[in-house]
Amino acid sequence: MSESAAASNGDFVQSLARGLAVIRAFDAEHAELTLSDVARRADMTRAAARRFLLTLQTLGYVASDDRSFRLTPRVLELGFSYLSSLSLPEIVQPHLESLSREVGESVSAAVLDGTDIVYVARVPTRRIMSVRITIGTRFPAYATSMGRVLLAGLRPSDADAVLTASDLRPLTERTLAGPAVLREELAAVRAQGWALVDGELEPGLRSVAVPLHGRDGRVVAAVNVSTSATRDSVEHVRDAYLPALRAAAAAIDAELHLV
Amino acid sequence: MSESAAASNGDFVQSLARGLAVIRAFDAEHAELTLSDVARRADMTRAAARRFLLTLQTLGYVASDDRSFRLTPRVLELGFSYLSSLSLPEIVQPHLESLSREVGESVSAAVLDGTDIVYVARVPTRRIMSVRITIGTRFPAYATSMGRVLLAGLRPSDADAVLTASDLRPLTERTLAGPAVLREELAAVRAQGWALVDGELEPGLRSVAVPLHGRDGRVVAAVNVSTSATRDSVEHVRDAYLPALRAAAAAIDAELHLV
Repeated sequence: MSESAAASNGDFVQSLARGLAVIRAFDAEHAELTLSDVARRADMTRAAARRFLLTLQTLGYVASDDRSFRLTPRVLELGFSYLSSLSLPEIVQPHLESLSREVGESVSAAVLDGTDIVYVARVPTRRIMSVRITIGTRFPAYATSMGRVLLAGLRPSDADAVLTASDLRPLTERTLAGPAVLREELAAVRAQGWALVDGELEPGLRSVAVPLHGRDGRVVAAVNVSTSATRDSVEHVRDAYLPALRAAAAAIDAELHLV
Repeated sequence: MSESAAASNGDFVQSLARGLAVIRAFDAEHAELTLSDVARRADMTRAAARRFLLTLQTLGYVASDDRSFRLTPRVLELGFSYLSSLSLPEIVQPHLESLSREVGESVSAAVLDGTDIVYVARVPTRRIMSVRITIGTRFPAYATSMGRVLLAGLRPSDADAVLTASDLRPLTERTLAGPAVLREELAAVRAQGWALVDGELEPGLRSVAVPLHGRDGRVVAAVNVSTSATRDSVEHVRDAYLPALRAAAAAIDAELHLV
């Protein structure tokens, strides 16, 4: 059902949508919010924000001190309803731990959600990006190595549809941001089975990714190794990290097919 | 505000509560649900379940194929609103990685939420428990090593209140489940600065935990090393793992106080 159809035919529960917006009003830079902050950030009246906060507090998802509100660890139940419904992270995590020890760099796994990749597992070593990456972090698929292998795993017409829906723009001087050049790059990735992205998401960030496959052969997720341009050349990423990454992916695929 | 007060005075938004129950209806054993499954598991009519599912689908939190529904990775946004509002996991994770490499066992960090501990970071090595532990997993505080150091970090009267609210019962033959004996154990943990639990949560599971402290000296979280009784003696846990764990906790505390 389309958004407008759901919204117009009375099936859309507005107060659920607004309550979830109150949860999303909290983040790293906004861990403690007043009633007015919540109202402003979730775009609702103070009276509405108060009702949603009190409901979330009654349910144990929000705690308050004096005039400020914060989320409680119980909120993790919600995100982890998804993670625990996925057997992938549990299988992938030990392999990522070994791979990270082997290459000495951060490694991650992500899935495609619309035009974005979403991290579902990660072993960080040192911080190399300006933004903090945690499970649940999203980046535009077209500009990331994991996104490129995930898009290359779609039927070309489906990948085209994702590119069409994407807000393609140069995030750095190096970003491939034209549909034609991206289609060409996806064809190359599809043929070679891996993607290397050099400073297209953020200057100085290099990463190489390969796909993970379900039992039916479809690409279900991607894993990558990321490093900084000051530490590792493109050749080193391709010649040293890619073989280790492919071996890890083959081991994960073998285990995924046993589930 | 108490639950009954919120529920009775019109401030409680029932449809937010029920929508969240629909999200929680999904888990590892119930990753794909039909409309009837959701209605049964979230205790509502099929018509209500349908409206909530369509709303969640419109918001991008649920996807459907034919007659079955599943959560999408976007649900992670919700749980990670909490995690990203906490600087703790980001600081703790690299220390847990090194500690796990050093001791060769699984290490974790948890916070207290009511009568439960909730995992906020974890480096698994091998699976030693019958249940899968992920970020967001909850266990009763009184029966776990991390729970004991978290309870010992409260004022004794607050710890007593948690014990009173807890459903104390023997989970194994070894579980301390009486309020008096637990109060005595908490006093010992408070004095020595660590807790060792041997087969009280699950037979054969041994773990040792120490507290993490905020800048004001209050206990804000706990970290532990867990192993199996078949692999490591209680003496080895105390003499080999505890010193490594204390060193890691001191390093984390130092970094937490810089935030």
